[in-house]
Amino acid sequence: MNPRSKYILTAFVAVAAAFAATIVLAQGSLPSWNEGPAKKAIVEFVGKVTQKGSPDYVPPAERIATFDNDGTLWAEQPTYFQFLFPLDRVKALAPQHPEWRDKEPFASLLKGDLKGALEGGERAMLEIVMTTHAGMTTEEFEKIVKDWLATAKHPKLKRPYTEIVYQPMVELLAYLRAKGFKTFIVSGGGIEFMRPWTEKVYGIPPEQVVGSSIKTKYEWREGKPVLVRLPEINFIDDKAGKPVGINEHIGRRPVAAFGNSDGDRQMLEWTQAGGGARLMMLVHHDDAVREFAYGAESKIGTFSDALMAEAKENGWTVISMKNDWKRIFAWEQ
Amino acid sequence: MNPRSKYILTAFVAVAAAFAATIVLAQGSLPSWNEGPAKKAIVEFVGKVTQKGSPDYVPPAERIATFDNDGTLWAEQPTYFQFLFPLDRVKALAPQHPEWRDKEPFASLLKGDLKGALEGGERAMLEIVMTTHAGMTTEEFEKIVKDWLATAKHPKLKRPYTEIVYQPMVELLAYLRAKGFKTFIVSGGGIEFMRPWTEKVYGIPPEQVVGSSIKTKYEWREGKPVLVRLPEINFIDDKAGKPVGINEHIGRRPVAAFGNSDGDRQMLEWTQAGGGARLMMLVHHDDAVREFAYGAESKIGTFSDALMAEAKENGWTVISMKNDWKRIFAWEQ
Repeated sequence: MNPRSKYILTAFVAVAAAFAATIVLAQGSLPSWNEGPAKKAIVEFVGKVTQKGSPDYVPPAERIATFDNDGTLWAEQPTYFQFLFPLDRVKALAPQHPEWRDKEPFASLLKGDLKGALEGGERAMLEIVMTTHAGMTTEEFEKIVKDWLATAKHPKLKRPYTEIVYQPMVELLAYLRAKGFKTFIVSGGGIEFMRPWTEKVYGIPPEQVVGSSIKTKYEWREGKPVLVRLPEINFIDDKAGKPVGINEHIGRRPVAAFGNSDGDRQMLEWTQAGGGARLMMLVHHDDAVREFAYGAESKIGTFSDALMAEAKENGWTVISMKNDWKRIFAWEQ
Repeated sequence: MNPRSKYILTAFVAVAAAFAATIVLAQGSLPSWNEGPAKKAIVEFVGKVTQKGSPDYVPPAERIATFDNDGTLWAEQPTYFQFLFPLDRVKALAPQHPEWRDKEPFASLLKGDLKGALEGGERAMLEIVMTTHAGMTTEEFEKIVKDWLATAKHPKLKRPYTEIVYQPMVELLAYLRAKGFKTFIVSGGGIEFMRPWTEKVYGIPPEQVVGSSIKTKYEWREGKPVLVRLPEINFIDDKAGKPVGINEHIGRRPVAAFGNSDGDRQMLEWTQAGGGARLMMLVHHDDAVREFAYGAESKIGTFSDALMAEAKENGWTVISMKNDWKRIFAWEQ
């Protein structure tokens, strides 16, 4: 072969290899997704917004994708994981608070009567959370969360919570990042409860976590400046709070948003209202065998009929865990 | 030359070239800095935290650098640029508010009597800001800021404000990013006032801007979801508020922090208290010829004697604009 032919052949092989690699990447990076409308919606959306010259092209800096956490990235049944944390904390702190034996909601809690404890409604829950989440420094709280996470297990699946994450969504996060997206969590959960582990579990660094928070105060303790956690709500990052939190933390409208419940409705509406190519998806918990089946009737992760109707009307994609996911957790099979 | 010698020589040349390139990068990327203690402090710090195997090594994910804006990245004299914005807005809105002719602080303002208008103190300033910054949607506000920026000029230097940025600091931002740092603005200024231009001017995207803010509310207007700006303070990102804002937005402690006034003291203290190799720097405005000379006596950008003493005691580096900077603005010379 003459040098010129050899050169052309080499170039041709290189181009063909690159092309093949792209296809393999698209197909190979979502191995836990079944072929179907959900996977198709993802791959088509990513294709058109990343294709230079496409009318839907979005520059990398604007490829913002936001994810709810509870019920979207990890399990939220039989109760939000974050609810178990204050309950365990109340038990751990009880010896220092003998008065709790006669004081609700603590008295019921210590007797193991969760339902009784929560009879006081939101005020009771708030009192439990404030008692267990405030007073210490941010560093002390981080350590408490990490220590607890190291031993706490899912009440039904009997595994650490950091393993009760949805493998298809972990693959989706990685796939989007490989395509130049910046992935954010936008959750009603406590921001300081999530940050200690989201980087390890989801590849999402603390500065890309948006959540609910209590106020903190800068002060000096033992010759060192610290941030002390105060028993005062700062921000509730849920429902209509999600677009507010997104605007405050990110300052850019997402082009893709993922949720699973009525708490995510406004985030998806806000994302779609930006116009142009947008991807809105809702995880639907319809797999009683491999996970949990719940929806309109559930108090946790309510997926109302109104939300389902809005999804249909607006062209949001509903992910069926039963049909769209080959496996749910990494440790399956 | 035998193949083995040739291989060794090639390898040697490659290593030498890489080494030389590193030195050239360090020296060549801060061209507006004079050789001296400030530049030395920067290059030495970056060298040790980025050198694998060094006891001071910091993984890229933790290389967080925070910068104050007014007086640190751009000029703040004769008054904060952001103060000129509401004053111009009051003039623009006056035709719709005939009652302002008899109502302070607006009456004085419209007569061009800034001093008189501000006699009402913080309350007067707040009234002006709330009147001009709230009521519209976030998108409308962004457009107002952009339109105003396109024509507003620095009262003394007669250039658009986006050109009144300190060239040595722009080089420092780029140098740090080239070394794997994530650069953030942490400013007392309004977050929504900065985000429309920080990416273009400093290379800092909206999600890496932390600032003061007013509250917003999600609602529907004309069939579209919007965020409406409310006349209510959400957060003041100044003094002891800076560590609070850093924790809330970034969730990680900076390893390097840059400021220029008493408003930055707590940010530098908080950065240093993380332990290990940290870089704390203060820009000192001591160049009356090329910019402005001010310090302890100035109401804007106060650099008190107490701050200077704290800098000395804690080993913070004070940057002399006069001695450490070869040029101040990109358009000089």
